Parts: sequence; structure tokens; C-alpha cells
Amino acid sequence: MFAVPAVSGEIDAEIQARIDLKTKPLGSLGVIEILAKQICRVQGTLSPRMESCGLAIFAGDHGIVAEGVSAFPQEVTPQMVLNFLAGGAAANVFARTNGVSVLVVDAGIAGEPLSHPDLIPRRAGAGTANFLHGPAMRADQAEHALNAGIEIGAAMPGEAAAFGEMGIGNTSSATLLAHKLTDLPVADVTGRGTGVTGGVLDRKRAVLERAAARTGSLDAFGALREYGGFEVAGMAGGMIGAARSGKVVLVDGFIATAAALVALGLAPNLRDYLVFSHQSDEAGHRHVLAALKVKPLLHLDMRLGEGTGAVLAWPLLKAAAAMVNDMASFASAGVSKAG
Amino acid sequence: MFAVPAVSGEIDAEIQARIDLKTKPLGSLGVIEILAKQICRVQGTLSPRMESCGLAIFAGDHGIVAEGVSAFPQEVTPQMVLNFLAGGAAANVFARTNGVSVLVVDAGIAGEPLSHPDLIPRRAGAGTANFLHGPAMRADQAEHALNAGIEIGAAMPGEAAAFGEMGIGNTSSATLLAHKLTDLPVADVTGRGTGVTGGVLDRKRAVLERAAARTGSLDAFGALREYGGFEVAGMAGGMIGAARSGKVVLVDGFIATAAALVALGLAPNLRDYLVFSHQSDEAGHRHVLAALKVKPLLHLDMRLGEGTGAVLAWPLLKAAAAMVNDMASFASAGVSKAG
Repeated sequence: MFAVPAVSGEIDAEIQARIDLKTKPLGSLGVIEILAKQICRVQGTLSPRMESCGLAIFAGDHGIVAEGVSAFPQEVTPQMVLNFLAGGAAANVFARTNGVSVLVVDAGIAGEPLSHPDLIPRRAGAGTANFLHGPAMRADQAEHALNAGIEIGAAMPGEAAAFGEMGIGNTSSATLLAHKLTDLPVADVTGRGTGVTGGVLDRKRAVLERAAARTGSLDAFGALREYGGFEVAGMAGGMIGAARSGKVVLVDGFIATAAALVALGLAPNLRDYLVFSHQSDEAGHRHVLAALKVKPLLHLDMRLGEGTGAVLAWPLLKAAAAMVNDMASFASAGVSKAG
Repeated sequence: MFAVPAVSGEIDAEIQARIDLKTKPLGSLGVIEILAKQICRVQGTLSPRMESCGLAIFAGDHGIVAEGVSAFPQEVTPQMVLNFLAGGAAANVFARTNGVSVLVVDAGIAGEPLSHPDLIPRRAGAGTANFLHGPAMRADQAEHALNAGIEIGAAMPGEAAAFGEMGIGNTSSATLLAHKLTDLPVADVTGRGTGVTGGVLDRKRAVLERAAARTGSLDAFGALREYGGFEVAGMAGGMIGAARSGKVVLVDGFIATAAALVALGLAPNLRDYLVFSHQSDEAGHRHVLAALKVKPLLHLDMRLGEGTGAVLAWPLLKAAAAMVNDMASFASAGVSKAG
């Protein structure tokens, strides 16, 4: 149901050979070479295309905010959605400077539905239930949100797709997804979110410990139902849909990585399509990245979400593909090789 | 003679206040906020412009290659210059994907001058002398190369200027500049350059230790004369010229950072204009960056030079300035602040 086609390693040696003939010391482009190889593998070609990228921002609300775990009130979710639609949020600004197109999806914001011609309505509910006391969502809601994401991810334009989110309380959801889907203790993956400190941070940690204790070990779908958010499910589905349509997937920060954990549980082949764009300053992110054994592209001490890190990493993908296509070889440029 | 105007801290508080009103948790854009503040300070404005960036690549040769310190033959310097002029090198490719314009300068390539309509001839000599036995260049050559760089840096288009280099043997030159202008031992700042290993690396280190012992402590101009390269002098001048004309300066990798050390010795006010774009995989670079107490923007395990790291960092400057100009404030977007 959620399967993603496997990426073949058939042309790996040819890709490597092509890169090694370029006019540069062997391996001297480091991470850009690794990225170029991944893009070639996903596209199954030695002439990769990487012309355009879209960002889909999924928004949803979280019942857990009733426990006082966030620095911002829940009304900020729809307010920020209107900010995205007006083009005034950080993700919009970075998307414009980097030539990335933006979609905004209502995956399940609390309250009455927002009405805006550019908002894509895919509501799985009016916010999740409080996961301190029971599952965040029903199975049919999880499926609805995942499928909406798959449809959107598959339809996004371009050769790369970035996913971002908005949802007051969603670092709490991501913390428990990370805890249940890796071996990391709750304390290691609990952070300040939008900026809680002192007593509020202590309360957040205590609430999350109690919520975690409510269930045993869970698979990806189970963890999503128990602790997920509609926007997290949408992103997880988006990643699967984007990969199914042959796109490279740019994973943003802590919440997006939690969505990636869910998506990887549902579709292990997704792994080859994922580019981890940056390491967030949100405390748990580096632990989750380490658990996934991935090295993110950027380290900019950001902790904003929305897809901001993914959008900032997009020029590196363009550069990596252009390196493969457009750099001269020693032979074509008449440059002598190392002695 | 090499002075750069001091940057005023007068509007620092206003810049910070403007950034803190943006629709995001306080400080959540991390390094992008630090970069935005620097751009505003250099330009002395709360409405910074960051529309275009140029890259000047300076090429020069090094007499020290007679000691067998490089993996590539000296003929690669002019060959790569022709590759830059044909648009086929990594720096060209990344410059194109990121919208950066490229200039190529002959600062002192060995042999007969290359003739090409797009090559800017500013030769201070036909390569430097072998600094194992005496100064790499005369004082008048150092001044010529610095002044040529200043003129080019001042005339470059755009609000940011990146500097790159080509010169077989120039990691050896940069190693000794770094050693003489910081407290770092030669061994810490000697690396593989374009890829020397084993016995060649041992020889390189031994040659550089002997060359270092030839002189005592040196000021920036003295170190440049004794161990510099014409392309290093050109870059140092370029940084000074770019700063004089109010541009932000993107420093590339190990060689460019050695040039920055020289330029900082000549013009300490330059410091406020410098953005260290990336940390090279060349072994000495992280030590020199640490000695300068700077945190570079990117960590991509690259060790190619040419300005490749600087060009890859350029989109972050555009994003940082756009954040200041275009992001909505809590008030303008009607978003509630943290409780």
C-alpha cells in the first residue's frame, strides 16, 4: 500500500567513473559528490536533471497542547498558515530567493476550516486528540492523511520535493515518534521546541514521559496513530508520493525527520531517495540523525521548521547535478592528471 | 595604504530588534540571523541589498613545486585557467547554478603569458621564486599583486565578492602563511593539497619545516613576500578592495583563508566584512579557522579551492538579507507572540 520502488545500484560504478574523470582532485568535492551519486541513482542516469523543487507545507494541530507543552498558543497554527499563503514566513522568503515553489496544505488545523483559494484542503480532523490520554488519531484518519500526502507528493512539480510543517505542539509529537521508532530515550529527544524553558520544559518532558509509558513497542503506523499529527502523516505520505514519482526528497528538521521515520517504517525503500538537509538546533534532532546514521548537509543552528532548512539546501542539489553534467573532464579540457 | 573603513556598530540594536519582530521563535534562524546582522552592519542599513555576487579567480605559480610538494605538474595551472575561461571547472558550474559571475585573473602564472580575451592580465612575475631558498617575491611584486587585487575587488559588481584561486603548489604557500601569521605549528597546517600521500606528504612536510626555519617572526607583508603567491596576494588585495567598496567578502577554503590572514594583517578592519564560507577538508583549515575564532557556514568536506565553497555559500547571504527585508512581523501578519 505504501511501497516505494527500490533504487538500483546498477550504474553506481559508471557514475563514480564519470565523476572521477572531472577536472578536480579525486574526491575533492566531498559531500557534493555523494549527493551527485544519490541523484544519479534515484534518476537511474548519468545525465541527471535537477531544475526545480517544490516545498509542500502541511499544517495540523495537536491535542497535547492542552497540557501546556508549547510557548505559543494554538491560534498561531492558522495565523502562520495565512502568513505562508501571504508569502511572509521564513519558508516563503527562502523559497523565493532559491526559486522553490510553495504549496500549503490544511492537514487538520483545529477549529473551523480556513477558507483561502490557495490553501489545499485535506483535513483529517480538527486537530488530533490529546495523546496523553489515548491515541492521537483513528486508523482511518491516519490513512486519510497519509494518502493525501502521497497524492500531493506525487503531483509536486520538479525533480526534488521538500516538506515542511506548521503545528503548535508538534515537537512533542515528533519526540514520541522518535522515541518509539528508534531506541532513543524520551529525555534525549525532548527539546525546547519554539522556545519553552525552565518549568515549562520540565513539564513538557514529564508529560511526554507519561504519554510514552501509555504504550509498548509500536510499528510505524501504530506510532503515527498513537502520537502523530495530521501534518506529520501528510509529510510522511508526501515523501512516499514524491519518491514514487522519482523525485529526490529533501527532509527538513526535527519534525520532518520524525515524519521520515514513519515513512521509512512504512516504505523502507524510501531511504535511497532521502536527503537530510540540515541538523536542527532542536535538541533531539542530532540524536535521531545519528540513529539513522545520516550526515545532514547543513549545520546552521536553525530550529524553525516550515521546510526552511530543506529549502536552503536545494541549491546544493542543483550544483551536484550540474557538476555531473557540465564539468569538463581532464580529457575534454586538456588538463594533465596527477603524476 | 591598505586601510579598510571601520564598520559601525551604531545600528546593531535596531537590526536585532527588527529581526526579533519577525514571525519566528526568537533566534530560531541561528546562523542566518548572525549573517543577516553582519550584512546590515556592513551596509549600515536595516534594508540590506544582496542581489548579486561576483567571483574573482586569481591564478599564479609557485617556485616551491621544484621540491616535489604537489601531486599535479605545474602545467596544470594554465590548463585550469583555460578551463575556467571555457566555463568547465567546478567553480564555473557552481557559479552558474547560483547566479554568480566569474572573472579570471593571471596574477603570475609561470612561463609565457596566456593570451585570451577574457583573461585579466595582472602578472607580478612568471611564478614566484622557490621559498625554500629565499623570499618568494620582491617587495615591489607583492605591492603590484596586492594593488591589482584591490583594483579588481573594488570594481567587482554586486553586494558580495568571492575570491578563488588556482596555483599548483599553493597549499604549501598557504601552510607557511598560516604558520607565520598564527601560532600554529607547521605540522598542524600541512595537508594533502590536491592529494599527496605517503612519502610525498612526508617530503612536503619536511620541505615546509625547513622553509619555515629560514625566517623568524614576520608581519603580514613580510610573510607574503617570504612565502606568498601572486594569486594569494591578489586575493588578499581583492578582499581589501571589495571591502573598501562596501561589499561583503566571501572567503573560500584554506588558500583563501591564508590570503585573508595576510589581508587582516594589512587591514584589521577587514574582519567585519569577511564571511567564512566553508570548512575545507584540507587538514590545516579547521585549525586556522579556530585560530581566527570563526565558524564557517558550510561543512561539505570539500578541498578543491577555486572559490567553490564561497560560491556554494552565496545563496545563504541572499536568504539572510531577504529575511530582514521580506519576512512579515508578528504585527504585520497578525500572528500571536509566545505566551
